[in-house]
Amino acid sequence: MKKPLILVTNDDSYKAKGLRKLIELMKTLGEVVVISTEQVMSAKGHSITITPTLTATLVDSGPDYKEYVCNGTPVDCVKVGYQWLLDRLPDLVVSGINHGSNASANVIYSGTMAAAIEASMDGINAIGFSLDCYDLDADFDHLDDYILTITKDVLQNGLPKGICLNVNFPKRGPEPIKGLKVCRQAFARWVEIFSECQDERGGTCLKIGGEFICEDNAEDTDHYALKHNYISLVPTQSDLTAKQYIEGMRRFEHIF
Amino acid sequence: MKKPLILVTNDDSYKAKGLRKLIELMKTLGEVVVISTEQVMSAKGHSITITPTLTATLVDSGPDYKEYVCNGTPVDCVKVGYQWLLDRLPDLVVSGINHGSNASANVIYSGTMAAAIEASMDGINAIGFSLDCYDLDADFDHLDDYILTITKDVLQNGLPKGICLNVNFPKRGPEPIKGLKVCRQAFARWVEIFSECQDERGGTCLKIGGEFICEDNAEDTDHYALKHNYISLVPTQSDLTAKQYIEGMRRFEHIF
Repeated sequence: MKKPLILVTNDDSYKAKGLRKLIELMKTLGEVVVISTEQVMSAKGHSITITPTLTATLVDSGPDYKEYVCNGTPVDCVKVGYQWLLDRLPDLVVSGINHGSNASANVIYSGTMAAAIEASMDGINAIGFSLDCYDLDADFDHLDDYILTITKDVLQNGLPKGICLNVNFPKRGPEPIKGLKVCRQAFARWVEIFSECQDERGGTCLKIGGEFICEDNAEDTDHYALKHNYISLVPTQSDLTAKQYIEGMRRFEHIF
Repeated sequence: MKKPLILVTNDDSYKAKGLRKLIELMKTLGEVVVISTEQVMSAKGHSITITPTLTATLVDSGPDYKEYVCNGTPVDCVKVGYQWLLDRLPDLVVSGINHGSNASANVIYSGTMAAAIEASMDGINAIGFSLDCYDLDADFDHLDDYILTITKDVLQNGLPKGICLNVNFPKRGPEPIKGLKVCRQAFARWVEIFSECQDERGGTCLKIGGEFICEDNAEDTDHYALKHNYISLVPTQSDLTAKQYIEGMRRFEHIF
């Protein structure tokens, strides 16, 4: 049987420990092509590079393995991957393992998840994996079995068209992970706290700080699952339509 | 009665004709604070600047009017706006008028719409306006009444919490606009066509081109409305959960 072709990307750069872990795991499942970001591209959302400046450089290769570094965003990485570098569509795109949660409102800022969403828009199975810990030296070893099992399931059963998975893991604690919950994205927001600081040239600029505020305390959310030591899995789409409000908006049709 | 406070932003830079038109219209409705992008920030999605490099410079002011230019993304503009520059939350955030459609799959790449979505996450009424024409010198004059009427309605009646409006106008043609349709976002995608070119320093890089492919031919979509000379209005949210697939994903709960 032909090995599945797995495209691996992330937004924390090629150096990130989470990416290296994901590569190591994916190598046990198929032919792996890595296209990771040259720079840290956290919070780049679904940004793409429309100026003619993109490059993708082969930095490593071996049996059933190629690794490229791309100077663009995570979405650029997947686009360049299967629309330029690869001669066939991958069977799966995996993104991560992100250093930091992409649950709840974080998903919309996340480069890691944008890469997975982009692939799903092209009908490719895709999963974003994230750990609820920003530490550059975070411990990912407790995730091996979970990541392998979820990935094998997706390779075998596929996902509905246009859907990817947003999988978030709780930070390693004294207790083992309790299990996995299929969730909806919690409604939350970041409130920024800006302060003035000096930039590299001595000019005044703004430094961003922030507080994550989640007033959505229902038990069916990804935020709740993570806080209770469960893995959260949210089926995620690129459709932003608030369908429940379409009828309520019909008043605008009658104005004109 | 106190005038409403309206924050105006965009992603095509402070110079854009669409922004200038939107400012001119909003000045007739309230106190206006403009925080626009210094550079063209098209396709920057929901990207934010997490390095300490942001600046916002006052470039113009007058009665009930202030205009700032920010060196960040459209989402940075709104965050810096009401979390740093303004002493109260705006009654409305309007973004645009974008040079180019933000209907269908475009919404997820759009900086213009990301600014509106960001405001909606903070409970602020928000509208993104876009014209289905990329021309820098596009004609926006046929839109005045539509934009004013929609904006007045939102100022008066508000929007549901967490929802903003994605309003797209057809390009000016020989026939007048037929009306407005409340729609869902069409499922579509961009297929990129990369080609090699020289960058500024003579190195080889990739140039992005693309083709918009919409296989979603239903009549209730924004894509359909625009193509038939209607304004499209999509209630838009930050929740990416594919709720219809939550039950189907429960199998993952039983694995562990």
